[in-house]
Parts: sequence; C-alpha cells; structure tokens
Amino acid sequence: MTRELHLNLFINGRGHHEAAWRHEHATGKALTDLSYYRELALAAEAAKLDSIFFADHVALGEDQEHTARGELEPLTLLGALAALTERIGLIATASTTYSEPYNLARQFASLDHLSGGRIGWNIVTSWAPAAAANFGQERQAGIDQRYERANEFVEVVSKLWDSWAKDAIVDDRASGTYAHSDRIGRAEHRGKHFGVAGALNIPRSPQGRPVFVQAGASTDGRAFAARYAEAIFTAHLQKESAIAFYADIKTQGRTVGRRPDQIVILPGISAAIGSTEAEAQRVWDELNELSHPSVGLARLSNRFGGHDFSHLKLDQVLSVDDFPDPSQVQASRSRSQSITALVARERPTLRGLLHSLAGARGHFTATGTPEQIADVIEDWFVSGAADGFNVMPPILPSQFELFTGEVVPLLRKRGLFRSEYRDGTLRERLGLDSVPSRFDPASPLQRTA
Amino acid sequence: MTRELHLNLFINGRGHHEAAWRHEHATGKALTDLSYYRELALAAEAAKLDSIFFADHVALGEDQEHTARGELEPLTLLGALAALTERIGLIATASTTYSEPYNLARQFASLDHLSGGRIGWNIVTSWAPAAAANFGQERQAGIDQRYERANEFVEVVSKLWDSWAKDAIVDDRASGTYAHSDRIGRAEHRGKHFGVAGALNIPRSPQGRPVFVQAGASTDGRAFAARYAEAIFTAHLQKESAIAFYADIKTQGRTVGRRPDQIVILPGISAAIGSTEAEAQRVWDELNELSHPSVGLARLSNRFGGHDFSHLKLDQVLSVDDFPDPSQVQASRSRSQSITALVARERPTLRGLLHSLAGARGHFTATGTPEQIADVIEDWFVSGAADGFNVMPPILPSQFELFTGEVVPLLRKRGLFRSEYRDGTLRERLGLDSVPSRFDPASPLQRTA
Repeated sequence: MTRELHLNLFINGRGHHEAAWRHEHATGKALTDLSYYRELALAAEAAKLDSIFFADHVALGEDQEHTARGELEPLTLLGALAALTERIGLIATASTTYSEPYNLARQFASLDHLSGGRIGWNIVTSWAPAAAANFGQERQAGIDQRYERANEFVEVVSKLWDSWAKDAIVDDRASGTYAHSDRIGRAEHRGKHFGVAGALNIPRSPQGRPVFVQAGASTDGRAFAARYAEAIFTAHLQKESAIAFYADIKTQGRTVGRRPDQIVILPGISAAIGSTEAEAQRVWDELNELSHPSVGLARLSNRFGGHDFSHLKLDQVLSVDDFPDPSQVQASRSRSQSITALVARERPTLRGLLHSLAGARGHFTATGTPEQIADVIEDWFVSGAADGFNVMPPILPSQFELFTGEVVPLLRKRGLFRSEYRDGTLRERLGLDSVPSRFDPASPLQRTA
Repeated sequence: MTRELHLNLFINGRGHHEAAWRHEHATGKALTDLSYYRELALAAEAAKLDSIFFADHVALGEDQEHTARGELEPLTLLGALAALTERIGLIATASTTYSEPYNLARQFASLDHLSGGRIGWNIVTSWAPAAAANFGQERQAGIDQRYERANEFVEVVSKLWDSWAKDAIVDDRASGTYAHSDRIGRAEHRGKHFGVAGALNIPRSPQGRPVFVQAGASTDGRAFAARYAEAIFTAHLQKESAIAFYADIKTQGRTVGRRPDQIVILPGISAAIGSTEAEAQRVWDELNELSHPSVGLARLSNRFGGHDFSHLKLDQVLSVDDFPDPSQVQASRSRSQSITALVARERPTLRGLLHSLAGARGHFTATGTPEQIADVIEDWFVSGAADGFNVMPPILPSQFELFTGEVVPLLRKRGLFRSEYRDGTLRERLGLDSVPSRFDPASPLQRTA
C-alpha cells in the first residue's frame, strides 16, 4: 500500500503570523463570528483535507493591545462545525490539567456522535503560568506532575469511552428492553489524581473514542506521544530536526509495542505562497512590518516561563547566554530548546529572532511559488520527516485559498493527495486501527463486565 | 404593557413519559442522532416558541435495561443547534457541583456568540448520589454545601463574563491597536471554593452572559432562585401549589430588590392531547401499559436519596409512613416533599403513585382536547400560577406536533402568544433587563479597571 499524505488545517485567529490580523488580505470578520469558521471549514472540506484543528488556552494571552485575542471555545465551536460540515475531521485541544475526566469524556463522546465519527482530541497539559491562577492554584504544576496527571487522565477517559459495548442498545419496543445492562460496564478507576465509577452516560461513539492527537515534544511529551498519540502536531524550524523527531517517535512507539503507521506525524508548515518567490517573500516582509515588538517579546518571555528579556535591545546580536537554561524551564520546554538552538546556530539580532518566531511560533516557515511549496511537502514526506502536514497559513483565509487552489492540485498531480473522500471515520482516513472494546470477545481488554 | 406568555420546549429522550421510547408514535431515531434534535428545534422555532431546553446529569441513571438512556452532552449539542437554528433560545443544564467556573464560563460565552445571543443556563447543583462517585468523591455533598458552592460559582462566572467591556475590541488595523487593554479587566476572585484571576479569554457575548435559569425548589433552591434566576422551571402536581410558589418567589425576589417581571416562572406541563378527552386519556393508558414497575421504583428510590422501597407491593395502599422524612433527604428535597404530600392527600396504591409520577416525574400532567389544554394554560397564566410553561410532551415528536399544530394556534387566537419573533436576544424576548457592565459609567458595578 502506498503511503497517503495527510493534511490538517490549523485555524488560528486571522492567520498564524502574529500580525496577520492587521494584514489587508486577512478576513474582516470578528474572531467570535461562526460564519468565519464555517467558511474555512467548508473550504478545507472542499479541498478534501483530512481535518481542521483549533488550539486552546485556559487563560487570556499576553499583550491584548497588539494581538488578536479572544476566540471561541473549541468544543462548543466543534459542535457547531459538526453540524455544518459532512466529511472533514474536527480536532480540538482540551487540557488534562484543569478538566474533570467525566466531563471531558462526555463532551468528546457527544461530539463524535454529532459528527458521525470525525473527532480528534489534541491532548495537552497546560503550561502557561497564567492558567493556574484561573483554577485556584498558586503556581502551575511542574512538567513531571502535569504528565503524570495527563497519563492517568487518558487512562480514565479511555475506560469511560469503553464502558458501553457497541451493541449495548437493542431498543426493542416490543419486549421493553432498551439496553443490555450487562453490556454497559463500570469504569472503576481509583488513582492518585482521579476516582471515577462510571459508566459514562453516553453510548459508545462511532470511533469508539476521539483520535488521540498530541503536540508536546519534551522528553515527557515524547514518551506520552509514543504511548498514546495517533497523530502528532510537531514544530520544527528545519527538516533535519523533523527527521530526527520522526525517527525517535516511531522507534519509541515500536518499543512500547506499536506499529509505526499507527502514529501519524504532522509537522507544522507555515507557507507564504506567491506567484514568484519575491512575491511570496513580500508576504513575510509585510507581516513583519506590521508586527509589534512587544508582542513577540511577551511571547518569548512566556516560552521561557516568564523570563524577563526587556533589557535586550532590538538590534543586539544574541547569544545563548541571554537565555535561561531550557532544561530548567517548566513551561514549553521543547520550544525553548529549539529557540536556543537557533540562537546558537544563527546568532540573530533580537529583532531577527522575533521575526523568525512571529511567522508561526517556532514552526517551519516556507516561502515560494506553489511549485516550490509542493516540492517542500513532497521532500519532507519522502525523506522520513513527515506523514503529512499541519497547514498553518500565515494569513487567513487568503493564504489558505492559495494553498487549496494552487498547492493541493499539484500534490494531486503528483499522486500524493486524495481527490475524493472515501467513506469512513477520521480514524479510518488516517489509517488507524479501530479501538478495541472490552466487550469484544476477541479483544485483549476483554473481561467479565 | 400586556403580559406575554412564554413557552419553552423541554426535550427529553423520546418524550417525558418514562415509557415513551416504546410508544409507536415516538421517534424511531437514536437518542444520539443530531437529526432528531434538529427536527424538534426547527419545529419549535417554526411555532415561535421562546426556547428549547435540555436537562443534564453527570451519571448514568438507574435501570438502563428498561429506560431509554444515553443522550448527548447538552453544551456540545447546543453548539450544533446554534448553527442549525436562527431565532429560538437554547437552554442547557450545567452543574455547579462538578465543573470549574473558568471552563464553564468559556463554554457558555462561546455558545452565546455562536448563537447570536440565544443562550440560557439552567443552573443546578448535582444531587444524584451516583454523580459524586464520578468525580472522586466518597459521598455527595449535602444540600447546604452544594448551594454554598453554587452561590460562589455564579459569583465567579459573573465576574468572568463581565471581564471585557462591550467596546474592548477596536480592531484598528491601521494603528495596530486590537483591543483597549484597560477595557479588559481581571476577575479576581478568591473564595472558599474557587480562586480565579481572569480575565476570561472570550470577549463579552451578545447577552453579556447567558440567561440564568433555575429549577431547584427547596428552601435553599428558592432563595437561590429569588437572588439569581431570570427564568424558573418548576414542578407542580396542582395549580394551588403553583400559585403559592409563584407568589413566594416573586415576594422573595422583591425582598432582595428585584422587580417581579424579572423572574419568569414556567411550570412544567405534560399534556396528552387528543381530539376527544377519551382519546387523550388513551395516551396515558397506553403509556402506563408500557411502563415497567422497576423503572418507576428505581426513580422513586433515587428521589429519596436511595431509600429502599422494594418491600412494598404494587397494589398496596400507601401512607406517608412508608416514606422517609423529606426534610432529611439530601437529594431532590422539594420533589420528595411534593410526593409525600400527594400520598397523604390521595392515598394511592404504589402502582397508582408510580403511574402518576411516570408521566412527567412530578410535573403537572393535563389530558384533553386542544381547547381544554389551551384553557388550562390560559387559566394558570391569568391566575398567577405561571408566566408561561415548560412544555413537556409525553411522547416526542407526535405530542409536540399536536401542541404546535393545535394548541399554539388557539393561544394565538386568544391573544396570548406571539405569531412572529421580534428581533433580539433570548433575554430581550423574555422581557429581561440587560446585564450591567462594570465598564459602563452608568453601571452600579462601575469601578476602576
């Protein structure tokens, strides 16, 4: 079987560049306007993309003055988009750090029903220091504790999603038997962080559970991904680091007994597309021109757990000594490591660094004609850097229109990307195995209910 | 100004009678099928009802064998229905007992944006013993503690919903100012149950916040309702008790400084409608015939905090001595009081009691022709028993089709009910004042941000 390229549209504000909201080719709609998201979702569906994705945060981000903040909550938004689309996958972030497993399990099961099996869950731990303060906590938990809780969280919700057999409901009006209660089982979990009795009060959903997506890339994050993730969003500034990550994850997956094709790796790509390379470059120049240094600086500080960079000058050449040791950072550790590696390698000015991070917050940026962008995608795909991409247009919807209108047809011509959807769930589209049920006699999970 | 009658459709399974799922005139669709809810919502919208409503529970109910269980989670479902409808209000239950204020505030704000200001929140405390076990707790909290937490919860989410001024977002591309950060304020709450810093990461929604709906009728519940509720769903087996409740709530509301018209009282009515009284009565007879005694008995036990009634015989005449003292019940206290009052008054057999509760779980049931049902509605409305009704058809969709097709036109003819929607939010439709903002100089909440 030939490998199939997977494409996910990551919808973020008016585009992934931090200044996109000001650009003349960005949408004029409010970030709280459903019609904006409906149009993007329908455009992605028309282009036969695998899925769309919304990130999430449980605190208001830094610098509301100069950044477009205040988007919709993803799970309620996915409910709306499930009703407005028919085929495309719908993925949302939800945090294991500040949610209750029973509540989140219900919402994802419900979304999977509403969408007919098109839902994915990007499993995150909340690293932003501001988030803890919204949940009654003095300080954020350290990375170890967050992943310990995340592991147990996934264990609990998995039991809940597995608490109804597929055939539990018989709905026999004549006999008065609605369900076989011996095909509905308790979830029985009593751990360090959670105690849940179950069963869930929602029947097994079309996919069994949402597709597990993951994006953490620290040591803990990778171990978690190797164990649970079925799709991975990952940020790399260079192909080499993507290749190393890809090999590491597939190897770690094998070590815990998983087949490599059961972990679909999707690096982010933020492509500025133009009819010439110069026109494409102009997109970045225009966006950088519109950037406000305070936004990038606040974001940089956030990445390093609140470290103060305000004494640095914009035209100052940076060295790694200007940064705290990433291994001590309790926030987004992999992202801070990748930033200090870039500083060591390229010795940029502060302004240069902020520009290179403004594009897509540490994800790979590409610049060029549709042909050149298709080349990059094909190259990464065949070089063992990617199973597909997390498409992060710098400006929405204009740069996504160029991607679907110009790049996707080239990928099709090269035999890399589908022309039509086949029937099936998101899980099936991604080539993932079905989720075992403890009620299935053939399942390794089978036990007396 | 003439008073306006308000009508809400309460959507519950295949109808409110516990055996409705077996009835030949009930829908054949699964309870997880969005198209079923879409059709009901569109029918209610076509009939110009104020709103539709979904209850919620955070545990699987008793007796899955003989009852239709396993519905969708209401907030994700409301997301879908917000996208599929245009005018009708959308109300969902969410618990203050097992949710985090920051999470719930975000989801309701998001829904209010998605729907253009059509959202209501039925604020509940979770009384079911089984719920606690899904949230790591040995036993459910007592009624006092639950309301203490509920009061603080509403205080916190109200601060969060008030953390953005209406005009906080300026979205000025030319100057680079997206928002006035001095028009976004912290929510700063540090109480017994919650600590929240804020601000919310979603801008102020069209209604400011969801309409506050409430259904608890215990002493604590009424005090809570008088303070916060803008619409009340309430269960009465007789008009007299509805009149007493109505007077009590409006008086209590006045005592805490609220205008009576700012609390819209909607008793439940479960009407079996037929072209003759005999035909209507047949609906109940058929449904009771389809009832399974174990279902009613399990529900009765649940209402009395898990009390064991299994030693009672179906044809035994009951007395209040067969029941525990309702004032000691830590579950649904008002409902258990109303049941023992009925037993004292009517001395039914156990079978008779179960039948009278099977209809609509302690809500008022009516039986008759469309004319007779319209008479009841008009009578309660003009007698100070109701500002409108929570319509609970015993069988869905058939009995709701009779209600919209036969009863609603009569209410229109009598000048009681609207023929068209006026523009505006759900809040405006219910005649409720707008929600003050601390950023409004005229507001009593105004303070320096």
